[in-house]
This record gives sequence, structure tokens and C-alpha cells, in this order.
Amino acid sequence: MVRRTKRQRSSSGSGITQQPWSQVCNPYPPLEILSADQIEAIHQASLTLLEKVGLRICSDEARGILASAGAEVDEAEQRVRFDPALVIESVAKAPSSFTLRARNPLHDISFGGNRILFSSIGGPAYCSDLLRGRRSGSYQDMCDYMRLVQSLNIIHQEGGSPFEPMDLPAESRHLDIYLAQARFLDKNSQCYPLGRERTRDAIEMACITLQCSREELAERPAVMGIINTNSPLLFDTPMAEAVIELAQANQVSCVTPFTLAGAMSPVTLAGTLAQMNAEVLAVITLTQVIRPGAPVIYGSFSSNVDMKSGSPAFGTPEYAKCVQASTQLARHYQLPVRSSNTTASNVVDPQSTYESMMSLWSCITGHVNLVNHAAGWLEGGLTASFEKLIVDAEMLQMLSSYLQEIEVNEDTLALSTIAEVGPSGHFFGTAHTLERYETAFYQPMLSDWRNYETWQEGGEVNAAQRACDIWQQLLRDYQQPPLDAAIDEALVSYVARRKESIA
Amino acid sequence: MVRRTKRQRSSSGSGITQQPWSQVCNPYPPLEILSADQIEAIHQASLTLLEKVGLRICSDEARGILASAGAEVDEAEQRVRFDPALVIESVAKAPSSFTLRARNPLHDISFGGNRILFSSIGGPAYCSDLLRGRRSGSYQDMCDYMRLVQSLNIIHQEGGSPFEPMDLPAESRHLDIYLAQARFLDKNSQCYPLGRERTRDAIEMACITLQCSREELAERPAVMGIINTNSPLLFDTPMAEAVIELAQANQVSCVTPFTLAGAMSPVTLAGTLAQMNAEVLAVITLTQVIRPGAPVIYGSFSSNVDMKSGSPAFGTPEYAKCVQASTQLARHYQLPVRSSNTTASNVVDPQSTYESMMSLWSCITGHVNLVNHAAGWLEGGLTASFEKLIVDAEMLQMLSSYLQEIEVNEDTLALSTIAEVGPSGHFFGTAHTLERYETAFYQPMLSDWRNYETWQEGGEVNAAQRACDIWQQLLRDYQQPPLDAAIDEALVSYVARRKESIA
Repeated sequence: MVRRTKRQRSSSGSGITQQPWSQVCNPYPPLEILSADQIEAIHQASLTLLEKVGLRICSDEARGILASAGAEVDEAEQRVRFDPALVIESVAKAPSSFTLRARNPLHDISFGGNRILFSSIGGPAYCSDLLRGRRSGSYQDMCDYMRLVQSLNIIHQEGGSPFEPMDLPAESRHLDIYLAQARFLDKNSQCYPLGRERTRDAIEMACITLQCSREELAERPAVMGIINTNSPLLFDTPMAEAVIELAQANQVSCVTPFTLAGAMSPVTLAGTLAQMNAEVLAVITLTQVIRPGAPVIYGSFSSNVDMKSGSPAFGTPEYAKCVQASTQLARHYQLPVRSSNTTASNVVDPQSTYESMMSLWSCITGHVNLVNHAAGWLEGGLTASFEKLIVDAEMLQMLSSYLQEIEVNEDTLALSTIAEVGPSGHFFGTAHTLERYETAFYQPMLSDWRNYETWQEGGEVNAAQRACDIWQQLLRDYQQPPLDAAIDEALVSYVARRKESIA
Repeated sequence: MVRRTKRQRSSSGSGITQQPWSQVCNPYPPLEILSADQIEAIHQASLTLLEKVGLRICSDEARGILASAGAEVDEAEQRVRFDPALVIESVAKAPSSFTLRARNPLHDISFGGNRILFSSIGGPAYCSDLLRGRRSGSYQDMCDYMRLVQSLNIIHQEGGSPFEPMDLPAESRHLDIYLAQARFLDKNSQCYPLGRERTRDAIEMACITLQCSREELAERPAVMGIINTNSPLLFDTPMAEAVIELAQANQVSCVTPFTLAGAMSPVTLAGTLAQMNAEVLAVITLTQVIRPGAPVIYGSFSSNVDMKSGSPAFGTPEYAKCVQASTQLARHYQLPVRSSNTTASNVVDPQSTYESMMSLWSCITGHVNLVNHAAGWLEGGLTASFEKLIVDAEMLQMLSSYLQEIEVNEDTLALSTIAEVGPSGHFFGTAHTLERYETAFYQPMLSDWRNYETWQEGGEVNAAQRACDIWQQLLRDYQQPPLDAAIDEALVSYVARRKESIA
């Protein structure tokens, strides 16, 4: 549970008010929007799809692995059909909870149960901020963004490069990203699981950073990759290779179909969920055939397109319902579940905020275990925004605070204090208040609660502009977490060696 | 349930895309954050407070009514203490659901159960928009705001004057407000329940508008007033007079203590809830002593102050928890429950949006029956914003759409369509999509889903600026709902007569 104390509040070393690092738990019951019968119907529909239609799996190796486990493979079509029993038995082998190591053991993160983790955005081509506008992301920009991810206590995991450092060559930039993750963060970071080599590099560099063998890493995993299917019903070779690498090494595959209803999946949400679920189950089956018990996350990323324009829409009512329905499906399989904080807005404004809040509240009330892209996402994921990172971090802090239960006992019911204050009295000066006021309420990082006149005198600064001030202040205050010089050297040498072999 | 069809979408007559008018229901289970034991502990604490401490009730008449029902009255202190049995018996007499009439019978609204109603903001001294800035509200401004409330289908009830028309004399402006409500809206409107006369005027003018007797109005109520206690534990004379008038006429008292934890109630949320609950129960007891079965709403408005500055804070994590806990208390008494959409922000920006979303999601998931101030509230309720009205209406529409259940059946599971499309196919052109695409997904009023380049070419207009365009367009498109000339004349004559007697 998140706990705030006066001393801890500035634990980042910054002058910015923050909650301390903490694992967040949801003590409230999950909000279930589908009945058990409806979940069963979707489950059965997915099994039927896997049995009768199957997936096209492009990787020869993956098809071979599945064939050896009894799946029906049509090599001409690269089509794999799954016996329902194989799927059910395999998925049952995946753990319902596990822990991922971070460079700083205090930042290890646990998945499953009622725990909630927040990862920062990963993947866009662009970055933007109010000072320099929208642009292709550079390595320097990316390093700054990682410094902010490290500084924001509410973010538990870095999202596998906040955006592409476009000034670096595509073939080897993952190595520079991994080096930056190791240097600028002591939190867990996601890897860049595009193909076998990039995934293996993440595993090797994790071993160097954590100073452990591959066997030790398998016992206590640290690497996680987001594995997307190409919906509908296609699993491509780079992703299959990554899954094979991750599962063999007992590292985490977060299996996430990206299904936009009306385009890559049926226009009906039930059909979208059935297809999404089938794709997740197929890939998880592959992981468990490779290594029974390999950690996986049930990933959900279902939204819809605008049927007028074909534009993808995010943070919509349909998105919220798919998130909550997905958590029910994941719980049906007793697997940790991932969803995301999304918006289609092009600017940090009310739309970006309400679409993100639609996403976040559905994640929280549905008991998502990992909110991916929890902070920074803008423009349907094409841009990582520096200001959105701060706005989202504030919302994540608020939601974490909302998840601190109301204590009901004689002290908190405060009947003697209410009697003492009496009709038309005031509670400010009572002993009951004075003993508790410092930690009683959520303290915002971004929100401005001053009255209009004071706010006006202060320059009428809105929340997006204040977010711009805050990330700049956090960068000024940033302190790089210490990394053993020998480890740094070993990483640099690994990167150099690998770049040579790639060139 | 909200239903959208192509034909209905522009039912307001405007070119602005909107959902049609509809009663909104929540088919999902309520999110309960307190245990039954905790609710019982708060309930018992409230009864103890009412028995041992009581309320100061300033109205001699109200004290007399309660004394005659067996309450213990200390006239010197104006203090009324309540026997727990009196409270429990009285509260049990209040109905768990009821309907309020509107001028247009299609706009009648039902309270209770899993129904959710949205009312527009009521009460501020200021209004603001991006064109003319923040200012004291005029009658002309107020009439325009009422036209917008009428135009926005998602708003079910007008909130009792969106802001004070400061260019009209305070003693009689309620009459002008009632006249504007009758003319510009055919929806139900809240009254201005400050004292006996203003409340009686609302009742009389409702009888004129609906062309019914007071007896008929008692059978089918149409008038509702927000009744605030002066927390802690004070009930003033104007509010008591309004309650007496409303209850005698079998009209609706929405009893809402305004408790800011740390100032007007204990710094602990349990204590705040116990005190709030006691105040609600006291006033509801009064209503049921006056007229058993008189309709009431359990009102919750508990937030916290910033303990550093004393500023009130809204849409906070504490606020969200109090909303949800209050709905559990109201359900304990089987009463309809009201809460609000709040923010402390001074501008329509990300803060105003995330604080509103914290409020709205806690209302929706907690099964609030009436979201008061559901649209338009800014600056902790000191300002009614024209743009916020539109942003909030969009969020209310999204939440209503979220409350449309996912249909799970053979058609929606769409297995044959998924098989037909197959791996790496596309769903756009399928018969399954073509049959459903027009009404499959939520269509926004405000959100812009265009890609960055198109949005940039369109002038980089953010959601607040688009909201400014939308309310102007709605005003241009506004059509006054027809009102019988004889009724209008009778209302004008009533207002003139009453103004004379006030002057």
C-alpha cells in the first residue's frame, strides 16, 4: 500500500512534492461488467477459433515447437490449429504471480493478485514538449525522458524506451537504449523485443547489470518484453523469436494483441474480445510448451476505429469496457493482466485528460496489474509528451491515494472531537486535527488549489504549463543512481562488441 | 438505457453530434469500498452523535415540529437531540424511488435504483467563457446558459440557476430565474430553496406551468431543492423553512451537508462521514415527521481542505472515497443518493478535467442517482464555465455509453466473420461490419480523433477552444420549446404580483 509520510515525500531528492516509491495495491473488489456465463461464452468462442481457424505463425521454429506439442500445423499456409486441451493445459502452467528484479532491489516489482504497477510510455517515433514542440526523438531527448521516469516515484517500470532515438541506427539502437536504462534508472525496464538478437542482448545485459548468470536470471527474472500479435490471427517472426528467447530464459512475455474493433477485429466488442483472447491464449500456449511455468502477462489492447474516418480512437467507452472485460478473462485463467493509459488527442488538453482518465479508471476498477504506457502517451501513441508524463503521474498518484482504504475505528470516527467542536465550530485547531493534518490528505504535485485571484496574480498558469515547469525542475534535480564502474565498463564493452558484429 | 441511432443523433435540432435524451442506468454492480461492518459502525456513530450531541436547529418551527415527534429540545441552545428509534423509524418512511415531472412529459426523471441523472451547475456568482472572460453573471448570460442546458441532451435537470444573475435584485431574482426555467427549458429544474417564500414561489409557479393544483403536484411532484446544513451540526432558518415547505407539499428535499474534512468536519474521513450522515439523517427525520413518505435524496458533498493553505480541494482522492462511501450509506437507508462533479481548477485545463473525472467515475461506479453540478462547474463552484459545460457533457456522454452493456451472443461473437476474414485480413468491408458500423461505437461531440498533421492543418485547436465553438453553435441552433401563451401570461402575472409584494 502507498504510505505517505512527511519525511518520505521528497524522497526523490527533488523540491517537487511527490509520493514515495511504493507498490500499489487495490483493496477494493474488482468491478465486473460481464457475467460468469458471458466470460465462459467468450472463452469457448476463443477455443473454437483456435481449433477451427487457428493462427498464421510465420516462424518455422515456433510452428515446429507447437507441432511437437501436438498442435495441427498446415505448413503451406503456416497455419497452426490448437486442440482446446493443449491450450487449457498449457495456460494453466503459467504462474499467477511473479516478481521482476530491478537494479535497485527496493524497486523490484511484483505482478499479480491485487497489485498494480505503472510503466512509462514506450515506442513512439516522436517526442514533444511545450518548449521545443513536436519532433523526432533524439538519443539526448530519450535520456532526459528516462531521467524523468527515474525521478517520478509513482512510475514502477520504464517502458522499453519512451520513444525511438531516431538519430541512432535502427539495427543497433536497442543497445544504446539498454545502456541508458542501466545508467539512468535503477528501476526495472522493459526490453525491445523485436527479434531474437535484441531480446538476447537484453538478457545478456541484464546479467551484466545484475551480476548474475543466465541460470540465476531464470530463477529471478528481470527482463520483460511486450509481445504483439498482428491482429487478426497473425504472429510474425520477430515477435515469435522474442517469445522463444524470453520463454527459454524464463523471462516475461507480456502477450498483447492490438485489436481495433471494426478494423483488425469484429465491430462488436464480444467478437473483438473472443479474437483477442484467442490470440493471447495461442502465444501463451507457445511459451508454456517452450518452458512450463515461464512468466507471462495477459495483455489487452482493444479499442475501436472511428467508422467515419478509419482513425483509431482511444480512451473511448468501448476501450474502457474492453479493459474491464479483459481483466475478467485474465482472472479466469489466473494470469496477471496488462492494459494501457491511452488517448487520441494531439495536445495536452481536456481531451487527452478525459481519455486518459477513462483508461485509468477502467484499469484501476478492473484490477489491471500492469498499466502500460501509464504516463506520457499522446496522439494515439505516436508521441511521448514531456508534459503528459507529469499530468499522468499526478493522476496515477491520485488513483494510488484513492486506493488507500478509509480507516474506520473509534479514533477516526472522532465522536468526542465532533462533540467538542459542536454546532458551527471549526476543526482546524483541535488536537485530533493537529495530530493528523500533515499526512491526512493527498498532496498534489501538479494541481493548483489557490483561489482565482491568487492564481491570476501568479500569471494564470494552466496545468499543462505547470507540468512543463515541473519536468524542467525534475531534470535539474535529477541524481543519477550510482552504478558500479566495472559494471558500466562491462556494459560499454558489450555494446561495442555487439555493434561491431551488427555493422 | 442510452440508445443511439443514426436518426436520433441530432434530435436537438442542432448540427452538433449528440446522444439523444435518455434515462441512464448503471447495469454493473456498485463498487463498495467499505465493508458492511464499517457502514454499520458509521451508522451507529451517527446515531450516537444525534442522540448525545444533536444539531442546533435555528428555526423555531422546525424545533417545534421535532419536539412534537418526541425529539429532546433545549430551547436555550436551540439544540435538538434525537432518539435513535425516531431517526430510524422516520428515515424508513422516505421512499426509495420516485419520479419528478418536467414540463415535457418525455423529460420526466426517475430517482433511485440503478438510475443516474445529470443536473447542470447551480449557484455560482460568476460565469466565464473564452470570448468574454470571467465576470459577474447577468440575466442575459444566465438565459443563454439555460438555453445550452436545454440543448444538451445528456443533461436531465437544470441545477436551479447556473449562476446568480447579479444584475437583478437579490430579493426577487428567484422569480426571474423560475420564469426563465419555464420558458427556456422543458426539462425539470431545481428551485432556489432559500427561505419559505422562494420555495413557495417555485411550488406555485410549477402548478401554473404544469396546470395542476397543489394536491395534484403533491401526487406527482415536480419541485426539488438542494438543502444544505451548515456543518458542523447547524441547520439554519432559511433552509429549515424551505424543507418545511417542500415536505408539506410532498416535493423533494435533497439534503446535502457540505463538509470539508479538516475544517467543517474531522480531518479523518470516517469522522467526516459519521458527521455528514448524522446531519442528513436529522433533516430527513424532520421531513418525515412533517409528511411521512415525502420524497428525499441523500446528499453527499464531502471533500477536504488543503491543510497548508486552508483552500478547499475538490475531485481529490478523499472526495472520491467519500462519494463511494456515501452511496453505501444511502443504500443502507434505501434512499436515492446525490453527489457532484467538482474541481478546484481556475481554468478549463487538464486539472479541471482530471478532478472532474475523479468525481464522475466515483459517482458512476458508486451508483450515485443524481450527479449534481454534473456539467459546468469550475473554481470550486464559484464559476459556471460555458466551455466546461461542453467538456463535462462530453464526459457524461462517454460514461453513459460506457454503461451500455457488452452484448455477448452468437451474432456478436462473430466467429464466422473472424473465420471469413482470416489471418491478416481486414474487417472494414465485411457484412458483419457494414450492418453495424453506424451505431457500433460512441460518436463524440467534442473529441478530435484526426491525426496530428490534419489537426495541425486545421489550426491546432484544443478541446477547450473547440468547446467554445460548440456552445456558440448550440446557441445559434437553439429552439425554444413551445409554451402555451396563457401559461406564459399567467407566469408573468404571478411574477409581477410577487415582485410588487416584495418591493
